[in-house]
Amino acid sequence: MRRFIVVGHRAVTTPQFSLDDLAGAAGRMDLLLNAANAALLVSHDLRRDVEATLVLLGPPDPPRAIRLVGSQLEMWGPDIRSNAALIRRALGHASRLEGETSPGIFAGRRNLREVLDSISDPIVELREDGADIRTVPLSRDLAFVLSDSVDLTSEERTIVAAKKPIVCSVGPRSLHTDHVISIVHNEFDRRYPPTPS
Amino acid sequence: MRRFIVVGHRAVTTPQFSLDDLAGAAGRMDLLLNAANAALLVSHDLRRDVEATLVLLGPPDPPRAIRLVGSQLEMWGPDIRSNAALIRRALGHASRLEGETSPGIFAGRRNLREVLDSISDPIVELREDGADIRTVPLSRDLAFVLSDSVDLTSEERTIVAAKKPIVCSVGPRSLHTDHVISIVHNEFDRRYPPTPS
Repeated sequence: MRRFIVVGHRAVTTPQFSLDDLAGAAGRMDLLLNAANAALLVSHDLRRDVEATLVLLGPPDPPRAIRLVGSQLEMWGPDIRSNAALIRRALGHASRLEGETSPGIFAGRRNLREVLDSISDPIVELREDGADIRTVPLSRDLAFVLSDSVDLTSEERTIVAAKKPIVCSVGPRSLHTDHVISIVHNEFDRRYPPTPS
Repeated sequence: MRRFIVVGHRAVTTPQFSLDDLAGAAGRMDLLLNAANAALLVSHDLRRDVEATLVLLGPPDPPRAIRLVGSQLEMWGPDIRSNAALIRRALGHASRLEGETSPGIFAGRRNLREVLDSISDPIVELREDGADIRTVPLSRDLAFVLSDSVDLTSEERTIVAAKKPIVCSVGPRSLHTDHVISIVHNEFDRRYPPTPS
């Protein structure tokens, strides 16, 4: 399983956010949704071997983790506005116990540490000062940790560092999260080409 | 100059489209806007050496070409809904003569052939059966032609073929247009690293 964990520092944690202002009032929810699409979608299909977890840390009721399971999603598509409606439904589930709020969408009150603790695969931290991802030996099953438009906080970096991550960079420029994910996928699609179905 | 030309076969050509249904009623305008963002944006900045031209072919008044010039844009940002409002303004300019409708945004009644005729740099067609982009010698100044969620029509392929394009592929999977653009940029960012400013 290829996993992407994206930390949304300002993404709101109420199911009442407006679909008409995902970038503003919803705390750059558009950025998380674009990242999820880069993680989960190929042309006219979903990546069935991918899981994306969005960690929402904005007001009023953080933390929340929303886990999107490519092999089980039924209603996820390219339109981020429609996907945002599924996120709203997921935010209605505020229990610490993860619950399935739509097919393939699991939500719960979990923070970054708890999300990472639930993963046994090696962690890859994507940072501009990391080793070039094209040159690092990497297994097929990995969990990539990324941040939204601001860097991970020092506390979050400590949490990630405790997992002894492989630290990689995708290239010489600082890019948007969704674009980084597209580049990561491309590298792995090349190393582990899809088998014809 | 690195150029991206993206053909939107269904993208509407009226300034009256709703910002609330970019994926539906606006004819997958969201896809064109995501592609433009992949072409033009890096983290917290614009790519000043890039130009993206969207060719809109949907109803009611095609064709239209909207050219986004990275070095001159002032109001373009990550939020596709805000950018869509700039596209609406551009669609209000229906003259064959290109006009600047916002800083760095130029619009006119031009079809794919006319857009390609205005470009002197080599053309690269991105297709899944092309040569691996990592192995093809490519100059810094190129114009990449891409389609939206459907392939170029046979007529459009004839128009592109007349330009004797270099035909490249980014990898083994069929991807969304914006993800392809991210991968292309990464390859060129590596070959021609940005100079520190």
